[in-house]
Formats: sequence, C-alpha cells, structure tokens
Amino acid sequence: MAPRALDYESLNENVKKVQYAVRGELYLRASELQKEGKKIIFTNVGNPHALGQKPLTFPRQVVALCQAPFLLDDPNVGLLYPADAIAKAKHYLAMTTGGLGAYSDSRGMPGVRKEVADFIERRDGYPSDPELIFLTDGASKGVMQILNTIIRGESDGVLVPVPQYPLYSAAISLFGGSLVPYYLEETENWGLDVNDLRRSVAQARYKGITVKAMVIINPGNPTGQCLSEANLREILRFCYQENLALLGDEVYQQNIYQDERPFISARKVLMGMGPPISKEVQLVSFHTVSKGYWGECGQRGGYFEMTNIPPKTVDEIYKVASVSLSPNVPAQIFMGLMVNPLKPGDISYEQFIRESKGIIESLRRRARMMTDGFNSCKNVICNFTEGAMYSFPQIRLPPKAIEAAKKAGKVPDVFYCLKLLEATGISTVPGSGFGQKEGVFHLRTTILPAEEEMPEIMASFKKFNNEFMEQYDDRSGYSRL
Amino acid sequence: MAPRALDYESLNENVKKVQYAVRGELYLRASELQKEGKKIIFTNVGNPHALGQKPLTFPRQVVALCQAPFLLDDPNVGLLYPADAIAKAKHYLAMTTGGLGAYSDSRGMPGVRKEVADFIERRDGYPSDPELIFLTDGASKGVMQILNTIIRGESDGVLVPVPQYPLYSAAISLFGGSLVPYYLEETENWGLDVNDLRRSVAQARYKGITVKAMVIINPGNPTGQCLSEANLREILRFCYQENLALLGDEVYQQNIYQDERPFISARKVLMGMGPPISKEVQLVSFHTVSKGYWGECGQRGGYFEMTNIPPKTVDEIYKVASVSLSPNVPAQIFMGLMVNPLKPGDISYEQFIRESKGIIESLRRRARMMTDGFNSCKNVICNFTEGAMYSFPQIRLPPKAIEAAKKAGKVPDVFYCLKLLEATGISTVPGSGFGQKEGVFHLRTTILPAEEEMPEIMASFKKFNNEFMEQYDDRSGYSRL
Repeated sequence: MAPRALDYESLNENVKKVQYAVRGELYLRASELQKEGKKIIFTNVGNPHALGQKPLTFPRQVVALCQAPFLLDDPNVGLLYPADAIAKAKHYLAMTTGGLGAYSDSRGMPGVRKEVADFIERRDGYPSDPELIFLTDGASKGVMQILNTIIRGESDGVLVPVPQYPLYSAAISLFGGSLVPYYLEETENWGLDVNDLRRSVAQARYKGITVKAMVIINPGNPTGQCLSEANLREILRFCYQENLALLGDEVYQQNIYQDERPFISARKVLMGMGPPISKEVQLVSFHTVSKGYWGECGQRGGYFEMTNIPPKTVDEIYKVASVSLSPNVPAQIFMGLMVNPLKPGDISYEQFIRESKGIIESLRRRARMMTDGFNSCKNVICNFTEGAMYSFPQIRLPPKAIEAAKKAGKVPDVFYCLKLLEATGISTVPGSGFGQKEGVFHLRTTILPAEEEMPEIMASFKKFNNEFMEQYDDRSGYSRL
Repeated sequence: MAPRALDYESLNENVKKVQYAVRGELYLRASELQKEGKKIIFTNVGNPHALGQKPLTFPRQVVALCQAPFLLDDPNVGLLYPADAIAKAKHYLAMTTGGLGAYSDSRGMPGVRKEVADFIERRDGYPSDPELIFLTDGASKGVMQILNTIIRGESDGVLVPVPQYPLYSAAISLFGGSLVPYYLEETENWGLDVNDLRRSVAQARYKGITVKAMVIINPGNPTGQCLSEANLREILRFCYQENLALLGDEVYQQNIYQDERPFISARKVLMGMGPPISKEVQLVSFHTVSKGYWGECGQRGGYFEMTNIPPKTVDEIYKVASVSLSPNVPAQIFMGLMVNPLKPGDISYEQFIRESKGIIESLRRRARMMTDGFNSCKNVICNFTEGAMYSFPQIRLPPKAIEAAKKAGKVPDVFYCLKLLEATGISTVPGSGFGQKEGVFHLRTTILPAEEEMPEIMASFKKFNNEFMEQYDDRSGYSRL
C-alpha cells in the first residue's frame, strides 16, 4: 500500500529539514531523566520563571483583574488589589471590544500599538507609527511571519549570524529558503566584521542565491555581545549597498550587564544616518514580554515594528496575520504594561522598581559568576555575557574525546553535553545547535539558575569538566583555538 | 534600483495568493465606518464576547488567580474568590513549572493534555492518548501546522468543502498546495454526497494532483449543518479507499441547536468501524476554547488530537511546534477547565450551569429567529442553523443587480453586502469568500448579536433587502435556484 498522507515518507521535506536544538536531543534526554526522578537544572532555554524568577507583581495584578472584570464592581476589590492596578485594568479593558475573550484586530489592539509607538519614540527620539506595529504571540511568531513573507524558494537567501539562535535556521528551512551564514569572531568578543559579511554575500551570489535579508541579534543569542553604534551603522550601510532588508532581533534590549555598550536600537541608528539610507533600508525590529526583567515567556507576547516597508506589503502582512484572527489578548496587555510602565508617585511604583531592579542586578552578578566559573575550568574559555541571558563557553575537547564521541555516534559537543547532563543534571544546548566554526566546540547555558544556587552549579560543572578532561587527556594537544 | 526585499514585487507569491474574506474588504470598510462614528454590528466573525456575551465566571476566577498566585496566600482571598476556584487555581499551577510566565512543553502541559484525553474518552467511549494531543494557540494554528506538514507543493491537494471556512483555502495557498473543492448541497440542507467527492478526487487526479487529505467542518461553517453518523461513516470509508487523511474541524461541537442530529465526533465513528479502517485512517481532530458557550476567542486556546499517526510523524510535528516554544499557558488552563468542568456539588456548579445553559439556549433561539427572519425576506432563502454560529442565506440577486455590481467593479455578493453595510451597519461576509456554486450568491452572518437586539437587526435587514430587491427588480426572473 502507498504511504499514507501523514506517514513520514509523505511529509513536507522542509518540515523534516527543520532543526531546533534548544528542544532537541539534550532536552528530550533531560525530560526522560526528570521523569525517572533525577533533579534537572534546565538551562537549555531562556525561561526565567521556570528557574524560580518571580513575576512582577503589578502587571500580574492588572491582568488578573482584566481576566475577572466582574471584580471591578466588588466592594472588596481594594482589599486584594491596589488602586493603580484597578485603574490600569480599566484602562486596558476600555481598549478592548468585549474584554480578553474577544478577538482583537489581527494586528493587536490599536491602544496598545499606540503605547508601543510612544515607547519607541521615547527610547529612540524619532516618531513611530502605530499602524506599522503588529502585536504577535511572542517574537518568534513575528520572525516567522516576516521570513515567510520574504522567502520565495531555495534561491532566496537570508544572512544569519553563526552562532545564531536556531529559530532562524529552523524558520528558513521550514519556508524552503537558504541560510547564508556570517561568522561572529569569538576572539573579538563575538564581533561582526563587515568584510566577512561581504564575502558571505559574494559566495552566496556565486551559487545563484539572491540574498534578500540580514538578521542581527542584539544583544546576541547565544553569544551575549552588545553591538556598538558604529557597528550598527556599518551594518545598515552594508544593507543599503547590498539591497538587504534588516531583521533586528532586539528581544534582549533590557538585559544589559555592562555600562560601556548600552543597548541602542537599529532603528535609532538608521534614523540618525539621514537620507538616502534612513529612507531606503527596510527594517523590521522585534521585541517581546518574555525577556528583560519580565520573563513572561508563557504569556506569549511580542511585537514587530516596520520601517520603510511600503503600504502594499504592510497590507499583505496584515492579511496573513488575519488568518490567525488575533494574537492572544492577555499578552497584548502585558506588552502595554511593559512599554508604558509605572511612574514615580504611582502607588505601586516603589515595589515595581524594587522587583525589576532586583532581577536585573542579580542577572548581572550571575553573568559575572558564570563567566568567571567557566574561565576557571580546564580547557574552557568564555567571553563575558555583556547582554541577553546566555553564556556560550568554548570547550576545547581533546582529540581522544572527539574520537570517543565518534565511536558513540555523536557530534563531539553533543557527547560532552550528554555526559554533563548525566553527571550533574545540568541541561545545556551543544554549540553545534547554533552553528560554530569547524572543529570548535561550545555549549550554551542560560545565566538563569537562582543566584544562591549558582556557586554549587558552577562547582558541579567544574568537577565534571575537569574529570572529563582528565579522562580524555592524551597530553598531546587540544581540538584547537 | 531593483525592488527591495519587502517591496510588493519581491514578496513570496504564496503570501500574495492568500485570501481571507472574514477580515477582507467588508471588514475593512466596516472598520472605517466605525472610525467615522457609524454604529457597526460586527457579524463577520464568530466573536461572541465582542457582541456582549459575558464570560463564564468560574473559569475566569481560576485563571485570574493563576495570573496572581500571590493572592492565594492572602487572608482576604476568600472575599473575592470561591473556594473551588482557589482549589482549581492551585491544581493548575501545580501542573506548571513556574506558573503562567514559564514556557510549557511545546505540546502543552502534560496535565492538561491528560485532562483532554480523559474528556475525549468520556465523550467517545474509546481511550485517548495524551501523547497524541497537542495544545495550540487556538484551533487555527493547529490546522495550519498540520496542513504545512502535509503539503509538499502545488501537486499536493486537499479536499475542502465548498462553501468552506476560508482558513482552509488561505492556509493551502500559503503553503503552496492545491485546494480540491467538493460541493455541499444547499437543497439537501448542505449535505455531503460521496459520489460528488469521488468525482472531485477523480478530476483532481486527472490534473496530476495527489489528493492527500480531506477536511470536514462539523458542525458546518459557514453552513451550520450537523453530519450524521451514517454520513461520517461514508466519509471515513471513502478516506480509507482513497488513502486520504481526514482533518476534522470540530470546534463547534458544543454549538448544537436541534435534537435530531447531536454532535458525534469523527473519532468515535472511526473507532466504531473496527479494523482495518479504525487502524488505518489517519485522523486529526481540532477543538478550541473560542466557541461553544465559552467563546474565549481572545485567549487563543485549542488542541488537536492525532489518530493513527506514526510516532516518527508525531516527532516531526513536535519538533516544528518547538520552534514556537510553547502555546500560551493561560489558554491551556482555559482548555483544562473546558474539558474538565465543575461537577454537581461543587460550590460554583449551579452558577456555571446557569450561565452556560443560558448562553446555549439563547443561541438556539437566535438561530431560529435569524433563519425565520431571512426566510421572510424577498428573494432570500435560508437553511436552519443546526449547529455552529452562522447563518448562510442565499440571496437571489436580480440580473439588474448583477449588472450594477459589474459596473461598480464588484463581485455581486460583495456589492450587496457593501450596500447592506452602508445602509444598516450590519457587517457580514459575502458568500464568495467561502466559495459557492457559480451564479449563486450568499452572505454569512453570525447568530451572535444580543437576543434583545435581534428583532431590530432582522427588521433592519429586511427593510434594506426588500428595498434593494425592489430597486433592481426587472420583473423578469432572478439569478437562479
């Protein structure tokens, strides 16, 4: 009998090509071990609440009230909710047509999109148009929609940093396009060299690929670096010269752990460059409620903002968004609360600042503890996490370990990470899941485990790593660098 | 200069081909009129809360508490929330790893998937496996994922009813497949004739199309009919003979307005047919929290259940779901609450039953009022809405009206619906958006306007329609039927 429609042999080949290591072999094995009763530290995905981060109180009060609008008329409501939360809930409910249970416009509620535009204007110093802002179920959905709009087939290419967050490689595979890699330079603190970009584009064109867009992740995932204004300007000039749209993944813009390179948006730099570049380069910027000190991953809220995108294209993007009816409404309200936060004098302001500052300052300390911890291990070197939520140490695997991996039928870094998982319960993602230079090995871990548990985790990592290195040491040299 | 990546000329052609009339020209015009201050009755989309339906109290209490878990320790919590809501909130929070702010497993929380499986078993009398149930951000996302998994290119076809809910045509366009229509017979109360199915498949194959799957919508959207068990058995036998996967859109299973044909799931019928059919036919069934007496559209919660899908395919579907990390967690809890409702004796039970019964009984009355109202209009005939949320009257347009539409550059039913909108504020969707037989015209409206407003709306429709028919009457005959 012929294979059936949903037998493996019959499936869409692009689906089969998708790889997504963040929830790949390591994650599946970790889930199994957890079921068997082993204590697992899930650092495979930037999921702060899963590792004990508490939600910010005020936004949760507001959304809870929006879910239960009948409480707003209850004489006892003030016993559980502060007056400013009650007022904010009324503010957002008034923007809906029927509360959280009604579909909103497919681009998201106009009122929230206006708040996003105001936020962007305050942040960048240039006006932003709410009609060019679409709310989404998390930033990933927005990225996928834009890539789907761009990619016509395998001869359309998208420049993606290597190492990259595998959403990009996965989505490009799913939509049948070609990933055109450009390498970040580890010894230059994961810097980006425009000459290397030029080479990547030239090589791709030589193969017949039309390079249509470039992705930047700033701050970097998994690499943690922050792009400087000068670097962003080079990138934008490059996009202008090469006729590339720029996709700016800026979901970690609140996660900055040093003072030398504050976050600066691609849009701000673009606007500052003046015409013709500021009028020509097509930019789509992405943001989320999942990161920063919010970490509201499970709510699935995000937005994208379009710059220099013609109205006919905006209409097409709107039309496709309409097929899914609307992004979830509660997360739209989280987005509003994120971009339009409490002000000094508001009843809940002090608590909000205390909570949010506490989270960011602790992340900053944890970034430092983790980098230092990795750098104290044998055959491990690690750049400091300037921003985002990840540490991406290089693991210099001895040839004997690489041989042992080969024998076990595993990619060397997968082999290492699996052993780490079995020995310590620390669930990481092998560097090969993000892409890395040939013969160089990494792992990605989040910096999210609770601060008080961090010393123990790093000690446990070090013990495992140093024993591993001892076991496979052949006293003849390491994989490279 | 060459077109830029996001200029219209450069976009993915499949994106351009997508049509989605539910939020198309009529909706956009209605939104404009609303901005200008006109009162619009949005019956273009099944969005009950937007038309005044109140949310069920108990589930909203539970989810509000899950959003604000810190209230669970507050000594005053019992003043605003009943004890069973508090207990249920604890029940669902215990299923999460970090509350609503943490990504769940990409398939959804295991605990909720177990509750869905138990619901299916109670409903159908056959066991269901939680590992084959995936939670989604609304049913639409699930449908899109499955179609994306199936469709390899334009020579892959999917049988879709005409008239159909345009999610199907839109998704098939987006993924570059071919829609293979089969016609529902209006004079047979939108019944489905297996001989017609066979003809459709034969024609498609003659054109070189591999027909891989068939969609049924039961109860029907936009047509409102309920499939009988005998009809479902014929369909499943047909799928078996023709090697088609069946996609069962069963989102309206709670929306039944007659007693002769209660809802019966495709899965129940399949299991009852015994081997080989019950072991061979691949079935994916879809459900949602957006419809029924819940109407929680804005929360975006749904699930799909897979039957006879091999593990390797399930793994692929899981992998692609992982790229979007997880469905939103609050809606997963709504799904749990929907499939595992209160029981007699629970504190909130009486209120829950009163509210949910009130909604369904009122919908039943409104279905009747609307059908009768349409049938009392000149040149309008309408089948009774047996289920779902829509009325789909046929409008017999006089030749003069068709001519006038042609002159205005409009499809005739779009012409009619636009005039209706301008005259009455009633925002419907032209039948051409769902597909209809050549030369026959319809419109779709929801039955959701508030019951007390229904007489006025139907009177306003009748006045418009009868004047329209008079204006274009040429005393020579009508478009057809």
